[in-house]
Amino acid sequence: MDEVTEISEDDKTFITPYLPSGAIRDDDAANERPFVTLTYACSMDSMISLSPGVRTTLSGPKTKSMTHYLRSNHEAILVGVGTAIADDPSLTCRYPRGNAPTAIQPIILDPQLRWDVQSSKAVTLARKGESKAPWILHAESASPRCISDSAWEYIPVPDHVSTGVPASQSQSRLQWVSILRVLMQRDIKSVMIEGGATVINDLLLERKMIDSVIVTMAPTWLGEGGVAVSPSPIFKDGIRVNAACLKQTAWRQFGDDAVVCGRLV
Amino acid sequence: MDEVTEISEDDKTFITPYLPSGAIRDDDAANERPFVTLTYACSMDSMISLSPGVRTTLSGPKTKSMTHYLRSNHEAILVGVGTAIADDPSLTCRYPRGNAPTAIQPIILDPQLRWDVQSSKAVTLARKGESKAPWILHAESASPRCISDSAWEYIPVPDHVSTGVPASQSQSRLQWVSILRVLMQRDIKSVMIEGGATVINDLLLERKMIDSVIVTMAPTWLGEGGVAVSPSPIFKDGIRVNAACLKQTAWRQFGDDAVVCGRLV
Repeated sequence: MDEVTEISEDDKTFITPYLPSGAIRDDDAANERPFVTLTYACSMDSMISLSPGVRTTLSGPKTKSMTHYLRSNHEAILVGVGTAIADDPSLTCRYPRGNAPTAIQPIILDPQLRWDVQSSKAVTLARKGESKAPWILHAESASPRCISDSAWEYIPVPDHVSTGVPASQSQSRLQWVSILRVLMQRDIKSVMIEGGATVINDLLLERKMIDSVIVTMAPTWLGEGGVAVSPSPIFKDGIRVNAACLKQTAWRQFGDDAVVCGRLV
Repeated sequence: MDEVTEISEDDKTFITPYLPSGAIRDDDAANERPFVTLTYACSMDSMISLSPGVRTTLSGPKTKSMTHYLRSNHEAILVGVGTAIADDPSLTCRYPRGNAPTAIQPIILDPQLRWDVQSSKAVTLARKGESKAPWILHAESASPRCISDSAWEYIPVPDHVSTGVPASQSQSRLQWVSILRVLMQRDIKSVMIEGGATVINDLLLERKMIDSVIVTMAPTWLGEGGVAVSPSPIFKDGIRVNAACLKQTAWRQFGDDAVVCGRLV
């Protein structure tokens, strides 16, 4: 496991305007949902993994430390069930803050309850008292096979009911507005959403749900057929247009990688 | 047309180690082929265009100026026939150097002679004396329908003869070693290769043919189905590995975009 070290003051100055504590927020958004930072690490060809289900190391040690610094500035961290299954992530914050680790709330977005909770690293850590008990957000219509425990908690989210959305899709997806409302009700004031590709591609098209976007880019090409970040195409008057754009963009080199921060236009 | 302005001394210092004049070269490579810089502009999702054949503006004015500064440091600029047809590019250098424009040799890689030479912008500019006459590199086995002119020149390249390559592919592709040998014979000491996707994806896997890679990244996502830069997947002992990697990497922000420079590992 790479060591997580303190980042420099210059690095902090760079990232501060995009953090919950440093960003200026729209009042309406602040009343309705937590501060949401969308973040991921990708290759030059926008891949987050060589193949579905394969954990692929992309960030170097400097961006790794930066990611943990980011986590230390958020109350919760959220990943989709695909990432939870593929990576079995710890979802902890290892950024050094005095003597105590920063307690961050791990959240798994698992509408249809596919994740094997009990054998997961996140739950093992919670049992040992080394992290908070993860929350599993699922569709209200799906029923957990076991009950919540001191090491995990099932939280139902009202299902997405929408005309025009195929039944199969509405069953497996939840609306972000509902997800974030549930987090707000639980007093989560900031959440860092880290992936995977399905979650990221959805959220890049939900600009009203996102306050900051922070992407780490590694100078490598994984090649065709990897797991790509690229949102669905967007058409205006029948003509393809850019799917998403950043404004107030800032780039900075961290080791061999770059970090780009911005806000969705 | 965006104005091309001088780039700052800091910008020049950043880019110099990756230029033909500033880079340290392997002696063998220097004797066998020109200095080759592979360069392209892409979105966050590694797309160079919204759809095949659609010219998509990605770089802002600052990276545009940087691209023309790069051109002014090379003797030739090369694009594939797909880009020549889709974009009808000028292939000139507009970077200000004293009073005279920098004369750069435009080259179209057109193995099967698909490009409509006579109506192209590059030939129109050459007729007016505003640029050099473009060279059209084609497979020796393909016959031009007209002869060379003062405004363009056909140059045959020995065909790729290789076992294991399907006939259809060997007919439409030329080997890079043959292409660069032809340029060397014509006394081209440096060439900037600017696209399109087919050319870039090929060359990212030909690390012995490339001295520098310079990529401009714009903070936008074009979305699925665009024209992507992503090389063919590479397997080692049956396991997928990264297709290409950069070393000696340097990143710098130019306006809202970033430029990343490096050398293929």
